[in-house]
Amino acid sequence: MKPGDEEWMGLALEEARRGIGLTSPNPNVGAVVVKDGVLLGKGWHRRAGGPHAEVEALRAAEAAHGAAAVRGATVYVTLEPCSTSGRTPACTGGLIGAGVGRVVWGADDPNPRHAGRAGEVLGAEGIEVTRGVLAEACGEVIAAFAKFITTGLPWVVAKAGISLDGKLTRPSGEGQWLTSEESRADAMQLRVRADAIVVGAETVRVDDPALTVRGGGVPEGKEQPWRVVLTNSGRLPEGARIFTDEWRERTLVRRGETMEAVLRELAGRGVVTVLVEGGGVVHAQLFAAGLVDEAWIYVAPLLCGAGRPLIALEAFGAGSCRLVTRDAVLTGGDVRIRLGRPG
Amino acid sequence: MKPGDEEWMGLALEEARRGIGLTSPNPNVGAVVVKDGVLLGKGWHRRAGGPHAEVEALRAAEAAHGAAAVRGATVYVTLEPCSTSGRTPACTGGLIGAGVGRVVWGADDPNPRHAGRAGEVLGAEGIEVTRGVLAEACGEVIAAFAKFITTGLPWVVAKAGISLDGKLTRPSGEGQWLTSEESRADAMQLRVRADAIVVGAETVRVDDPALTVRGGGVPEGKEQPWRVVLTNSGRLPEGARIFTDEWRERTLVRRGETMEAVLRELAGRGVVTVLVEGGGVVHAQLFAAGLVDEAWIYVAPLLCGAGRPLIALEAFGAGSCRLVTRDAVLTGGDVRIRLGRPG
Repeated sequence: MKPGDEEWMGLALEEARRGIGLTSPNPNVGAVVVKDGVLLGKGWHRRAGGPHAEVEALRAAEAAHGAAAVRGATVYVTLEPCSTSGRTPACTGGLIGAGVGRVVWGADDPNPRHAGRAGEVLGAEGIEVTRGVLAEACGEVIAAFAKFITTGLPWVVAKAGISLDGKLTRPSGEGQWLTSEESRADAMQLRVRADAIVVGAETVRVDDPALTVRGGGVPEGKEQPWRVVLTNSGRLPEGARIFTDEWRERTLVRRGETMEAVLRELAGRGVVTVLVEGGGVVHAQLFAAGLVDEAWIYVAPLLCGAGRPLIALEAFGAGSCRLVTRDAVLTGGDVRIRLGRPG
Repeated sequence: MKPGDEEWMGLALEEARRGIGLTSPNPNVGAVVVKDGVLLGKGWHRRAGGPHAEVEALRAAEAAHGAAAVRGATVYVTLEPCSTSGRTPACTGGLIGAGVGRVVWGADDPNPRHAGRAGEVLGAEGIEVTRGVLAEACGEVIAAFAKFITTGLPWVVAKAGISLDGKLTRPSGEGQWLTSEESRADAMQLRVRADAIVVGAETVRVDDPALTVRGGGVPEGKEQPWRVVLTNSGRLPEGARIFTDEWRERTLVRRGETMEAVLRELAGRGVVTVLVEGGGVVHAQLFAAGLVDEAWIYVAPLLCGAGRPLIALEAFGAGSCRLVTRDAVLTGGDVRIRLGRPG
């Protein structure tokens, strides 16, 4: 590692994050081109099928400073460059062709077909290689992709708004919302990340949610996520929003399948990140099956007594399910608790 | 207000807090004596029947610097000095006798028999009076006392350790503790504050708790709180710790009384702060009756499915109970949420 490496990688990470929710089934990647301590260009992977981040950054650098300026430069990229051609040519080839002097990356490629290859390919051409700079942060940005590519299952985020006593609903006559407007706006970032939103049939029957990405924070180019309804009975209201609105072609119904089968099918459609918005039966099934990677629980300062539970007992196992608390912050008057898998 | 007033009052507040849990049925009060920007002495109210904070501070100042030095000094006290004699002489008399030049206090006396009197009494003697310095923080230190003296009811703190789905207990065979060791140690500060701990009979039958103040953070002079068991059936295990340990004389059993009647009786015994440690029936009754002033909920990163609920439905009303979130912090792997009354 050399002085400045982490700062430049931090900038590449910022670029990578611009693509969150937009690139599935590809990972989020960012890159910057630097020479003699000066930024020549930066770029990010914008959509599946579009140029990779390294290529975007090299193009930007060449457009601004000319191809000669890029020769001998250092390229920082959050993920190990790909060394095989897919929908686009291999990035290692592009880096070699541009005549860069050094390549620095953060996370190794989790795809077993690529992992470790870039170092060999670039090294053979006399290009200096450094790996593992800000490896943890770079790994977090591609955590969902890493699971997807290694297991064939999407990354599963469970989201719920509950009362202090673990209820999803308020007593009848008190209105629909448990959590604050700020919490609900905050949760929209989860839909931005998601390629599919999963709910149970009861949620459709009772709440008739739109399950769309909307509001001020939605990045340009964000496609509406798949909307997946799980049902045992098959009883679903034909007039529900998700069956009648302009994105009705993005609604899927799955009846009587296991949760894992549904997730695997979604992965087959290129779904890397799934957001599960309840209700209690779906949450119970997912948690009991150990299929949840991340949970965002918004706890409202309310005691409900009665109401639908976060975990429907009939769909849960006999033992408890342990998670690990990541952080807790106030959102409006609620507490947002983020959790992950243990270990 | 003059320069330095808030800093000196902050020091008086630190003194006041030293008495937390030790002074019932009296409030926690601290005082400092200052002259020409120099601290002459400080003191706090240590126990009911003992000298008030102003007197402690004046004595300390006189012992260190002589009575002459105190003449013309400023006394900062967190609570309006009392102007009537009770178990000790009125503090206004002590301040006048010492010949101080100025008296500054934080919170007005919530006791209607005293409120506002000190200003008149001291002013008539030509002593300059300033009130309301750090009034909010000084008020918080005596919040429990203020409720007690104005309503005849103790301040009620509800404490619970729960799973994310609102259960007080883990599935059978998984061990007793939901929350982390750090959470349970953190909660001990609530017992230090408390003059009485209230639990339901089921908690005694199932957990056999000691309900004592113990561990490293217990201040000298802390008396073991009353232990109050509420029961409808009267069925209680004779061999339970609270009936057999060395503080068994501090255990009370109340059968079939309303929660308010129990609290009022405790206030009559000089109990200013009550800690309620569950279970779900007692919590439900207290919250439904609007009797809880403050709640500390430790949320463990666990989903239990089955288990005893935080709020036992059969003892709760038909509507929800709204609180206000004060803060949320991580304690061990849990999230500690503190809540208060709305408005």
